[in-house]
Amino acid sequence: MILTVTPNPALDLTWHVDRLRAGDSHRVSAGVGRAGGKGVNVARVLHGSGIDVLALTTAGGASGAEYTAELERSGIPHRVISSRTPTRRSIAVVDESLGEATLLNEAGTEVHRDDFHTLIGETHRLARTARVLTVSGSLPPGVSSASIGELIATTVRRGIPIVADLRGDALIAACRARANVVKPNRAELAEATGLDDPLRGARELRDLGARIVVASLGADGLLVVGEGSVVHARLGRRLHGNPTGAGDAAVAAIAHTLADTEDHTDRHLLPRLAVNAVAWSASAVLMPLAGDLHPDRAALEREIILEVVQ
Amino acid sequence: MILTVTPNPALDLTWHVDRLRAGDSHRVSAGVGRAGGKGVNVARVLHGSGIDVLALTTAGGASGAEYTAELERSGIPHRVISSRTPTRRSIAVVDESLGEATLLNEAGTEVHRDDFHTLIGETHRLARTARVLTVSGSLPPGVSSASIGELIATTVRRGIPIVADLRGDALIAACRARANVVKPNRAELAEATGLDDPLRGARELRDLGARIVVASLGADGLLVVGEGSVVHARLGRRLHGNPTGAGDAAVAAIAHTLADTEDHTDRHLLPRLAVNAVAWSASAVLMPLAGDLHPDRAALEREIILEVVQ
Repeated sequence: MILTVTPNPALDLTWHVDRLRAGDSHRVSAGVGRAGGKGVNVARVLHGSGIDVLALTTAGGASGAEYTAELERSGIPHRVISSRTPTRRSIAVVDESLGEATLLNEAGTEVHRDDFHTLIGETHRLARTARVLTVSGSLPPGVSSASIGELIATTVRRGIPIVADLRGDALIAACRARANVVKPNRAELAEATGLDDPLRGARELRDLGARIVVASLGADGLLVVGEGSVVHARLGRRLHGNPTGAGDAAVAAIAHTLADTEDHTDRHLLPRLAVNAVAWSASAVLMPLAGDLHPDRAALEREIILEVVQ
Repeated sequence: MILTVTPNPALDLTWHVDRLRAGDSHRVSAGVGRAGGKGVNVARVLHGSGIDVLALTTAGGASGAEYTAELERSGIPHRVISSRTPTRRSIAVVDESLGEATLLNEAGTEVHRDDFHTLIGETHRLARTARVLTVSGSLPPGVSSASIGELIATTVRRGIPIVADLRGDALIAACRARANVVKPNRAELAEATGLDDPLRGARELRDLGARIVVASLGADGLLVVGEGSVVHARLGRRLHGNPTGAGDAAVAAIAHTLADTEDHTDRHLLPRLAVNAVAWSASAVLMPLAGDLHPDRAALEREIILEVVQ
């Protein structure tokens, strides 16, 4: 089983309008609510691909009740820690005529110390039977990056491969904790390292302790930097679609590849990670909602251009 | 007790952003949820003014649970009919730099026949001890204006004064059912009658059967049209603030005036209705949230210019 941990989940609400006019009043049909947060999207992708997964997260308040009910309906195996603070909401208003979304992401309320401890305890307990653990997204207010670093360090010491999709201080803490894979995008890499060049930034994160750095570069594909080798993979053409959730699909592909590959040497693992992550990301871009993949993943895989940089 | 009926409530959610940029992503603090719907706002105004009131409405689904919890916290006496359909949401994104709100009002889901019958039954039961009944706002999908007309006609036959703040076909049905007071705004009056002149429009609604028509004209005050007389009231100066909820404050003032006045002759009642409705509306404009009134209502009342048109 792959265990996905989402420390700061959000109830994703989406409303569609013909045309969003600031300052105006719009009559809309009922918004769609979906249990979100990067880790839950990772679990959604894996579950949709028939891979054994368990989504671990927290939920509280009225929005948390809606969150849990939707997770229940989705069929994704899950364990929800009851939280004293309400689940934050992430609001998308989709302008149908322009095909663009205006997003409002609630920062969330400070998490109760005991609730976060329960989440960490439950992660350790469930990780016993996990083949891979992923930890994704932002941290709720009140949680230090050090505590996420400790969680990762302990998991690594227990020999459970971990994929961390974090940013800022938490990304740095994941590297120092020797996470097996960290997956920043271009902006997160630049923000964490102060370096604009993705290869130099990725090497900096490896120097901190991360074993493999997967830098996702949007339409330019992925750069995978390991011990001694670097590979780059990209699709041969530009895709039009919804980039939301492409990063989560990449994390799902990385977790599945780690779980499914015996030989973890650079030469063997890196090209597989790169090709799978690009194929799954591209399949996500073709779907309107985060967490869904286009069925024709195999065809996309054949279009991938893989280059061994070093 | 004044009974306020809200057939199509909404959970009002408000988010504040520094600057709303369409197509962008915004980090916001937690949105504020409030039990809304015009009738509940009327009840909020009355309760805040120390007047005995009971808010009757429906709630369902996860949004309904949040709705009921907020109503509970507000302290407004209420009776909520459990509905099989989820409570719709009304979303406001307030741009702090421009001071304007972008609104998304969910149309709502078709109400279950049995739930609506329960609401009507409960209205009749609670109306027995009511001094005045108000019915406000839109009708949920699936409810005919004829059924609201029947409710009003029955209430009028039982001798309970009724104030109807409805629009379109439901406004027409309220007039035909001989509602004591109907309170359209300028746009609703023009929409229902096809007449741009408020006085002519109000007379048309009286001809249909309404006893008193209170036409709210925004900054131009109010026109109150009775059997033989017409009065106009307005504030001597222009107010800056939030016009949302000004109409609900006017309905609250009208209901309170009807309950509190022995002599219902035009000469006695009309000027009181006009002055109170303008003073309460103006107090609402000065407050940021619908349902709240500025404490200095008495001072505003002294600034009102009352004119007997006929």
